[in-house]
This record gives sequence, C-alpha cells and structure tokens, in this order.
Amino acid sequence: MKAWLTRLPDPVPDTLRTPEEIARFELSRSLPDTPVSLSVNPDLGDSFRWIKMSTGFSLSGGSAGILYGAYRLILTFLSGDDVPDAYESVPRYSLRMINCWDNPDGSVERGYSGRSLFFRNGKLSYDPARLRELARLMASVGLNVVCINNVNVHFPAQLLLEDDLPDLSRLADLFRPFGIRLMVSVDYSQPMRHGIPTADPLDPRVSSWWTETVSKVYQAVPDLAGFLVKADSEGRPGPFTYGRNHAEGANMLADALRPHGGVLVWRCFVYNCRQDWRDTKTDRPKAAWEHYAYLDGQFSENVILQIKHGPFDFQVREPLSPLLLGMPHTKLALELQLAQEYTGHQIDLYTMMPMWQEIFDELPEENIMAMAAVSNWGDDAFLTGHPLAAANFFGYGLLSWDPHTDPRRSASLWSRLTYPSFSAAQQKQLVSCLLSSRRIYEKYTAPLGIGWMITPHDHYGPNPSGYEYDLWGTYHKADRNAVGIDRTASGTGYILQYPEDLQRKYENPDTCPDLYLLFYHRLPYSFVMKDGRTLIQRIYDDHFEGEEEARAMADVLRSLPFPEEDRTVILSRLERQLYNAREWRDIINTFFHRLSGVPDARGRTIYD
Amino acid sequence: MKAWLTRLPDPVPDTLRTPEEIARFELSRSLPDTPVSLSVNPDLGDSFRWIKMSTGFSLSGGSAGILYGAYRLILTFLSGDDVPDAYESVPRYSLRMINCWDNPDGSVERGYSGRSLFFRNGKLSYDPARLRELARLMASVGLNVVCINNVNVHFPAQLLLEDDLPDLSRLADLFRPFGIRLMVSVDYSQPMRHGIPTADPLDPRVSSWWTETVSKVYQAVPDLAGFLVKADSEGRPGPFTYGRNHAEGANMLADALRPHGGVLVWRCFVYNCRQDWRDTKTDRPKAAWEHYAYLDGQFSENVILQIKHGPFDFQVREPLSPLLLGMPHTKLALELQLAQEYTGHQIDLYTMMPMWQEIFDELPEENIMAMAAVSNWGDDAFLTGHPLAAANFFGYGLLSWDPHTDPRRSASLWSRLTYPSFSAAQQKQLVSCLLSSRRIYEKYTAPLGIGWMITPHDHYGPNPSGYEYDLWGTYHKADRNAVGIDRTASGTGYILQYPEDLQRKYENPDTCPDLYLLFYHRLPYSFVMKDGRTLIQRIYDDHFEGEEEARAMADVLRSLPFPEEDRTVILSRLERQLYNAREWRDIINTFFHRLSGVPDARGRTIYD
Repeated sequence: MKAWLTRLPDPVPDTLRTPEEIARFELSRSLPDTPVSLSVNPDLGDSFRWIKMSTGFSLSGGSAGILYGAYRLILTFLSGDDVPDAYESVPRYSLRMINCWDNPDGSVERGYSGRSLFFRNGKLSYDPARLRELARLMASVGLNVVCINNVNVHFPAQLLLEDDLPDLSRLADLFRPFGIRLMVSVDYSQPMRHGIPTADPLDPRVSSWWTETVSKVYQAVPDLAGFLVKADSEGRPGPFTYGRNHAEGANMLADALRPHGGVLVWRCFVYNCRQDWRDTKTDRPKAAWEHYAYLDGQFSENVILQIKHGPFDFQVREPLSPLLLGMPHTKLALELQLAQEYTGHQIDLYTMMPMWQEIFDELPEENIMAMAAVSNWGDDAFLTGHPLAAANFFGYGLLSWDPHTDPRRSASLWSRLTYPSFSAAQQKQLVSCLLSSRRIYEKYTAPLGIGWMITPHDHYGPNPSGYEYDLWGTYHKADRNAVGIDRTASGTGYILQYPEDLQRKYENPDTCPDLYLLFYHRLPYSFVMKDGRTLIQRIYDDHFEGEEEARAMADVLRSLPFPEEDRTVILSRLERQLYNAREWRDIINTFFHRLSGVPDARGRTIYD
Repeated sequence: MKAWLTRLPDPVPDTLRTPEEIARFELSRSLPDTPVSLSVNPDLGDSFRWIKMSTGFSLSGGSAGILYGAYRLILTFLSGDDVPDAYESVPRYSLRMINCWDNPDGSVERGYSGRSLFFRNGKLSYDPARLRELARLMASVGLNVVCINNVNVHFPAQLLLEDDLPDLSRLADLFRPFGIRLMVSVDYSQPMRHGIPTADPLDPRVSSWWTETVSKVYQAVPDLAGFLVKADSEGRPGPFTYGRNHAEGANMLADALRPHGGVLVWRCFVYNCRQDWRDTKTDRPKAAWEHYAYLDGQFSENVILQIKHGPFDFQVREPLSPLLLGMPHTKLALELQLAQEYTGHQIDLYTMMPMWQEIFDELPEENIMAMAAVSNWGDDAFLTGHPLAAANFFGYGLLSWDPHTDPRRSASLWSRLTYPSFSAAQQKQLVSCLLSSRRIYEKYTAPLGIGWMITPHDHYGPNPSGYEYDLWGTYHKADRNAVGIDRTASGTGYILQYPEDLQRKYENPDTCPDLYLLFYHRLPYSFVMKDGRTLIQRIYDDHFEGEEEARAMADVLRSLPFPEEDRTVILSRLERQLYNAREWRDIINTFFHRLSGVPDARGRTIYD
C-alpha cells in the first residue's frame, strides 16, 4: 500500500497490542540510531511532547498520544525538517474521523479507488495486514475514529449490530492498538426489522430496543466511538415519518449510547430531494438551517451534528454552511469529502488543502468540536486511485489535528515523505502543482460558485443543464440575458441565515468576492466585474486559462522523476484530465456563448 | 397472455404439428357452427382464399397460407365485420419478421414489458405454453419469422450456434407448426472464439469456419430463416476492422447460408458513434447512405439489407431513410421498432399505424422485399406492458402483409377483437385515442422533427440538451437566435441523397412540411410559418396543445369500460403519461423561452 509511509522498514506486527508498544516498535525501526525514551501519562490524552536529550529524545504522551508523538518525530526526521529540541502538541479536536461509504457488497459509494477494504459478499471481510497498514497511516497523521460503513445503510449492514457483532469486535481489536476506535452507521428504522411496528423515537418499544441493542454492541466493542446517522435524507428513514423533530430523533439514540460513553453523530444533510424545478420559493441551500437552527440547545450532550462545509453538497466552490455559525449551544462536527465526487473522481488532480484553509478563514475553530471526512480509499494499489490524491488523506489528518495547518507545509511534508528522492527544486514543483490544482479544476468547471454543471448521477465531466430540470434543487436558470440565483434578502433570503458581517461581505454584487458571485447573485452577462471585465468575458477567460494551466501543470508533472509504477498511473490520469479539461472548457464556453451571443473579446475559438 | 386472441376458447395443443392441423383445430373451436373445409395447395405459399359454400366455407391455402386464412376467417367473424363470400389474399412481402432484442441473461434491450420470453440464466429457457400463445398471435396476423436474440450479441448468445444447438432445434420445433421460422443474430467475430486469429471475411479460415458452422446449424434447424447481423456499429465487430467493405463482409456469410436456403439480414445502422460535438462536417443521417449506396448491386442474392425507416434512430418524426430509395439492385427490408424506445416506453400511449402510413406514402412498396420490427414483448401479464400497446404488434402484422393497410381499419379491428364488450360508440372513442396518440406524443416532445431532446441513455422524458455535447452525432445547436441543422445543399448536403422530387419537397423552408422543418433547416425563432405564426410561437402552441390533448385523451380512456385488470394498468400508465406530458411541455417551453426571450403570445405560463 502506497501513500507516505513507504519508507517505514517493516509492517507493524499483529502481536503489538497498545499504542505504546507500536510507538516503541516504530521508533526502533525507523530511527535506529536515535534512542527515544517513552513515558505514558494518561492525563495527556491524545497530546504529546518531546525534549531532546544528550543522546536521543524523551517522548511523553497520553495512551494514544504517545503513538502520535512517535509518528510525528519519525515523520519530522524522514521529511528532512529540523527536529525541534522541545516540542509539544495538543490536537484541537478530540474526534478526528474518517467516514467510509463502504457497502456490504464490497462496493464503495462515490468510491474512485476500487472496492471496499472492509467488506465483501455482505460480510466484514478483509486483509488484516492491509488494514493494519491503513491504521498505521491514520495514526501517523493523528486520526482516531473510522466509521466503517456507508451512511446509506444497505442491507445487510444492519447485521453489524446483530449477527455480525463478533466480526465487528475482531475488527475493533485490529484498530485498537493504533489508538483508533470504530464507529458504525446505523439504519434509523432498524427496530422494525424485529417486529416493532414503528421507529418513532418517542415510542418506548423503540427506545428500549435500542437500549438493549446498544448494550450488546458495547459488550462486544467496549470502546466503540458511537453511531453515525443519516436520517430523513435522500430516501433514508427518520423521525419526520413520525412527526418528530431531529432533536427528538437524535436524543433517543444518544440516550442509549450515553451510559457506554458513545456519541451519536447526526448528519444535517437534509433537504427536499423531490423538488419541482418550477418551484422558485424553495432554495435548497436554506434547508439545513431550517431543519436544525431552531433546535439549538435541545440536543443531548453526546449528540454531535455533522455539517457539510457548504450548504449544497461538496461542490468545488461553496460558501460556508450558515449552520456552522448558527448553533452555539450544540456540538458540531465539520464534514469534508476526500472522495473526489464532484472534484474529478481522483482522475483530475485536486488537492484540497487550499479549500480547507478558506473554510477556516470564516469558521471560528471553536465552533466545532470534531472533524469528519469521507474517505478516498479503496483496495487500489495506490490506496487512493491517483497516487497524488493520498495528499488529501494526509493533509486531512494534519488539519483535523490543527485546523490552521498551513496548506503549503502540509503538501510539502507529504511530498517529501512520499517522494524522498526528489531534489528540492522538484519538491517545489510538485508542491506547486498540488496547491494550484484546485483552482485549475475550478477554472475549467462551473464558473464563479454556480456549481452543478456536472454530469448528473455520475458527477464527472460537464453537462451545463444536466440538473436544470431535475428534482434535486440545484438550478442556475441561465437564460439569454442572465445567470444565477439571487440568494440575497431580495431574492430567496438565504443570505439572511448568516451573521451580519458575512451578509455584508456577500450581499452586494459589486463587492461580493468574484469566486462566490454566481452563488449569491443573478447577474446579466454584461455585469462589470471589479477588474473591469464583463461577467461573460470572465467566464470565457477562466475556462481558457483553466485548460491552459492544466496543460502546463501536466508538463511539469511529466518532467518529475516519479517511480515507474507511480508515473504510469499519474501520466494516464493526466491524459484523462486534459481531455476532461478541454471538454469542460469548450462545453461551458459554448453553452454561454449560445445563450449570450457575446463573442470572446480575444477572439479565441468558441465552438458553435 | 392478453392481446387480441383472448376470445379463442382453448390453447393450441402441443400435439398439433402442422399449420393445417392448427387451422383445423382453431376453426373447429372458434367457429363451431360454421363448417370450413380445408385444402392445402403448396403452390399457394403464404396466400389463401375462401369461398362461401351452401353450408360454411371452403378455404384453400399454401402450407402456411392455410393457417393465415383460417385466422383471417376467425378474426373477421369475431370482429363482427361482414365476411365476404369470396376472398383471396396474398402477402406483399415474403419475410414478415420480428426482431427480439433479448439477451441470454433474460434482460431485453430497450424492453418495456418485463423479462425475456426466451432466455434465462444464459440459456434458452421458456414456458412452452406461453411461447405457443405468442406463436399463435404472430400467425394470426401473418408474421412468419422471429429472430430470438439481440442484435448486440452478448455472450453466451454465441452458443446458440454451438453447444446450445439442440435447444435451438427444440425451439424451432415449437414455432414450426405455426408456420414460423427462427432467425438468429450472430456475432461477426465468432470464429475468433475458436482459435482463428481474425474475422476477416476474405480469410479462408474464416469462411470455412462459417461454412462448417452453418452446416451444423442447418442439420439441427433445417428451416432456419437465416442470420441477422449488426456489424461495425456501436462497438460491434465487423468487416471494417479488416479493411473490407460491407458487401465483402456480408457476402461471405451469405455464401455459407445459401446452400441451405438461408438469408443473411444485414443491418445498415452504421455511423460514427464517437463523434466530436465540435465537428460540424459530419452529419449522422448521411452515414447509412455513405456506407452502403455505392455498393448497390454488389450484394449476393440472399443478402437483405435491413434499413431503419429514418436516417437517425426511431425518433418520433424522421424523414424516410434515403437509402430505402437508393439501392434498386439490392434486396431491402424496412426496419420498424414496436418497442417504444423513444416513444414513451409503453407508458405513454403511442400507436404507430399513422406513422407507418406516412412511411409508405413516400416509400414505393416494391423498393423492399421484407419487413422487420423490433418486438415490444416481454413476460409482462399484458405481453406489451401497456395493454393498448398490443395494437402496434397487431397492426405491424397487418402492415407487413399489406403495407397499405388503413391505420383506422387496423386499429378498429384490434379494438373490436380485444374489447368485444364495448359499444360501437366506445369502439370509436378507443380507436380515435389510438390514432391520435402518436401526434399527441409528438406535440409535447421535441418540436418539428428536431428529435433527440430526450433523456440520454434511458430515452424517457425531456432533456433538451442531453445529447448536445455527446458522442452520438445528434445535435440541435439551439442558441439565442436559431435552432436546427441546415441539411440542405448549402448545409450538410444530406438532402442531396434524395431523388429530386423529395429534395424539392423539403429544401425550401417556406414550403417544407412543418413537421419536418427543423430536421432539414436551421431557422431563427422569428421565422414565419405557413399559417403566419412564428416558429417560436408554433413550438409553444404545440406543447400547450399536446399536453391538453393528452389530458383530454386520458378523460376519454378513463370513461371506457375496460375489464378491471386492463383498467388498473391503463389508468396508472395514463397518470404517468400526464406527468410526463407536463414535464415535456414545461421543460421544452422553458428551454426555448430562456434562449429566445420571446413570451407566449397567448400569455400562458412558461416557467422561468
């Protein structure tokens, strides 16, 4: 399994049973000439510190922190960075989670890296050595929870809480030595599989079924992190069926988990997915706020609301979800997506650290208490399909430890660990490609925050009107004069969900940052941007530039001395990316040219 | 199995082995009070005649003709029509074929009536009683060949010529007593399954493999009608791979079939299905002519070129394929599609007889010597999904016997046979719905012959730009000013493939029949139609009218006293049709309104 630990000399033996034992093993193998004395202090939790001694280092940390410290020391050494004489680190968030959308049949929803690492033929079925490598990768960047199954709980995933509990227990044993706890996505209607005629959270038969079931689950997996639930969303069952709100729905499950120390992670991805495109009153980005904000303060202490970073669904460019700013009395987790669902399917290079930096520019770090990200893994030889997509997994680990991790530092560290043979200049070139890749992809795809001009269902490649008359609430309503949805106070009112400073930032099209312009405003093609260009010319320019920059980036990447097996995969994906970039450029430009009738001011080819 | 023979009292026993025996059985059961004396005269082939005698009738016919005559007599009696005292009938075409697109796994490509009646789990697997009912239905309307497997030959359909020959032989035995012969779709590259490194038709290893294989096939099925081939099309293998033209490719296979009396039916559905949408030189409707017309006269005598009725692919409105007018020295078959691929999936009511009448208005009947139609059958309780879709199967039988069968007569006969309890007024209402259904569907879908504004792949429901940037060569290039492709001499030149009288009929937008206008011409929305309306207003009007007419038709159908089980299915499909009609109306109108900016002159609602 590739990624960034290729240089660790030996696999972690399955005989090691604690983070401390693994820390000792890893240090002895990776830094054989540097003695490191370890001391575990449970009070330190996930944090650690080290001090340089006359010979070697003294490392102390909590029961898991000791392992994070060991990996940090090793990675610092391997990266060639200076190793500080004294260093202390405390993770900003206590839950640093990965959500796998893996199905029991071995498929992975929105997976672009092969089949599931966890499931096959309806059962937990895996290569233990491979999962230990995965656990090692997670621990090396400080991640501590893995939710192993899809939030869309397809049968027989329900059996993880029933007949398959012994398998779940064995899997937890595998991850535990790395300081990693399991989480399970559960089906809200699961009691109905057992003769209970309802899943109403206020029905005592339902709550007592869950109480008993959770109790059995914790006998098998005493340190289970908890449950993850997608309720009342895209066809999933939930409390709305019974006229209950989501606090009532979540608290019932949370009550069952609380005695065992488990948390209930409740996703806020709830909206009307059967919208009539003729309906201009409903505005999907408003949905999460409408369903949850009024419930602030009503959730039990062990409920965590997990909120996608934007109000839509992982588009290349979305503003921050207002819900992340609107629930001061509720525990929140930020949800990111490493799987490149809308962002190139791990064919197109798309490194996410710059996007995450933008999120935390507006999101006060104390608003949330946990991080979650949808995995980009699979049984692919490179773990993440595109070898360079592993940088997102790596970067996410660092981000969830410290949300203000510098993107450049994160990319650079990954690059030096993964391709140690590169010269400093080559490292710089690779890092530059990684850090510019998101903006390049953004330029050649849907313009200026408008989103959704992607092939429906599949979500790769352009289809400018593919979602325009569909049921998903994702419309741009481009016509011969104008494009976009007015989400200001005089439009759908979405912007009113924000604090006043953000309203002011975005409400006026003359001062709204360009890249969010068509998310918030409906504007004529003749609208004059801050730099004097018209909106339509800006759209053309971005698309020509995006495609050119993709080609330039490909030239740089082709020149780098990747190991042969990486190189083969990278080059073939670059070819596909360039084809995709050209399709996007020409189709989006033609689409807007057909509507607007405005020629490119610079006379470049726009096809009829 | 429903359709139009519900009133025949008993199933045909499997002990009857010849058309004559079946004719005798059917007459004795259906017309017990009318003695009919039979005499078989092999010289009469498929034709028959009857004379009224003092008591009963004297019916003579060829070995299959005797059965067609018996059914005609029975259907005439059952329909309530006057039975002529003397009647003679000769089928216009000797091959009256059904093409099933059934796959070995039991799926049916473009099937809207359930699963295959022939295949399951990779094998021929069927209910013999049900297939005898199907054979009876075919024979009752004079059809005489059934090609049982998909022209896209998916493994293991190849085994029909190999290991599964005994099964094929038994199936032929089942159909033979009804005068029906089997045909098989073959994989042009099949020799390569047997160690031959090529499928080059001029390679002697290939031709001798086919000679031997065909010989074995005819030992098992001596009266096999022949083979059907889709070559060099949509990913199918073919002679182009080896630099051979389609005469060379077809004649080799035909040579193998000729000694056994078999025909080779060779489909002309060949075009570039990887077209770049930016390419304005290539015009898909020109493709069939370009691939075949120059080969006229070069095909062996037992080759039949099977040509779709239009130059695209079974759209609601297409002009006649010019190839049907351009190969005077080649045997041709006309291909129709009963399966409602683009015409409503047997959810929307769409009766095809009026469309077929239009085809034969331009197609001299002597230009072709055979008829083929893609089946609309499946294991559905009503055989054709929508109970009223059986009228297309029925009508096709009558059409292939006599291409100038009056659509009204065909629909009326079917209606009276199928719903004998209806009053004359109710019959008239039903027939009126059937005959108007095609024009109604046409009105609410893509306008004026432009086609292809349908959901890609699935082919149900509107998606006005769904194919616009795709690889299939099907573009309308609608922009803010104009819509359509200029296919005249000054455009792509497609029109030059027609004889001069047809060129003149269509070349001038001022005189071109309205319904073909956007097939041949690119026109501004302000173009003034013959009746004084603008093009854009005509588009709006058609869509409003189409949806209104669909509702009116639904009201009529709801009022008719269908048997309860038919009624349930018909009403639920009508609901779905009305939803679909509304979606089409609004989405097409909105699409053109966004582009043109022109409001509806009558102030009806067009959504933003």
